[in-house]
Amino acid sequence: MVMNRKCIIRLSRYKNALKRLKALGFVKVFSGNLADAAGVTSSQVRKDFSLFGITGNRRGGYKVDELITKIREILGKNELQKVVIIGVGNIGKALLHYKGFEAGGIKVIAGFDIDSAKYANTSEVPIYPLEDFRDFVQQHEVKIGILAVPDVAAHHVSEIMISAGIKGILNFAPIQLRTADDVVISNINLEVELENLIYFVNAQGKTEHKDA
Amino acid sequence: MVMNRKCIIRLSRYKNALKRLKALGFVKVFSGNLADAAGVTSSQVRKDFSLFGITGNRRGGYKVDELITKIREILGKNELQKVVIIGVGNIGKALLHYKGFEAGGIKVIAGFDIDSAKYANTSEVPIYPLEDFRDFVQQHEVKIGILAVPDVAAHHVSEIMISAGIKGILNFAPIQLRTADDVVISNINLEVELENLIYFVNAQGKTEHKDA
Repeated sequence: MVMNRKCIIRLSRYKNALKRLKALGFVKVFSGNLADAAGVTSSQVRKDFSLFGITGNRRGGYKVDELITKIREILGKNELQKVVIIGVGNIGKALLHYKGFEAGGIKVIAGFDIDSAKYANTSEVPIYPLEDFRDFVQQHEVKIGILAVPDVAAHHVSEIMISAGIKGILNFAPIQLRTADDVVISNINLEVELENLIYFVNAQGKTEHKDA
Repeated sequence: MVMNRKCIIRLSRYKNALKRLKALGFVKVFSGNLADAAGVTSSQVRKDFSLFGITGNRRGGYKVDELITKIREILGKNELQKVVIIGVGNIGKALLHYKGFEAGGIKVIAGFDIDSAKYANTSEVPIYPLEDFRDFVQQHEVKIGILAVPDVAAHHVSEIMISAGIKGILNFAPIQLRTADDVVISNINLEVELENLIYFVNAQGKTEHKDA
């Protein structure tokens, strides 16, 4: 069974919420707590769980540990997921050292750049020349890459990534990348996100948001 | 007229594509070019433009300069938009120095943190103590804030932002923030984005993606 994107995002959120609740000492949890933490309704939580045969009961709730294990299995995260970053500028460097990934079983194992001043074999996460990308990716069987190069280079670099065997790209360059059917691309455009916020903040009080 | 979020995102993408085309020397552009650059269909571009009374013709296309001006007016971006960042860790620091915002008329004017080791009045973008946030935001009439603190602090800090008068929050903390009706929150969860990619890459070849 392959789930749709929204369902995957919800499962990720449940899992992140569960890990926080576990850290607070929770052993059991109710669908309502998870719903609040993930920003959905309780009935959505119960619907998602019943889809995967996860059971609880109204009185006792769900067991936190079991839920985390089950969701990690569904998301394919029991193995550590190796990720590489191309483009070690402001954003790339931040992601190279981002603490939030490791708790989720995601490990950034290398960065790549064309600027030799950035190469560092001694740092926690090594940074290599872009020429070494293909060999590295094939040797370490990496399937996921984060693209954080300037917009003018993004298309060219995405082709290098794909030809090396990368199957999923998280793209921070402010252009829409398109590609072959067997590669998944997720675009995060920070300027568009901010513009979107600015528009709605400016529009507030004038009239209600349309939802069409 | 208040537009929906998807329409705003498309307009932002058209504008970003137009600026790149202008830099390449383009004077006129066809809906097909913009559609390719923004990842939508030509008919969607024409539909969006007719909604705002923007006209072109099949032979001559649209004038790049006029389109940029018109879209900037619609997005409320002819004034420089002031933005502040709370939390100057890896992600916050990267956004403080992110070059992509300024070209879009967005200016990050200050960062705030609780760690005094990070304060810097001399850097290009100053970093102040969190205690100064309210006065600063009110004095500079800032309405948009980027939240980049750890998850455990995010809810508390979002309340500080809102009580100081912030109306739009771009949240990078990995929790779902909710708030009052007159505040717009956009959540960017990097771990969820990566997990989503990993899931689909792992699922590939097994069966086709469902789209429901």
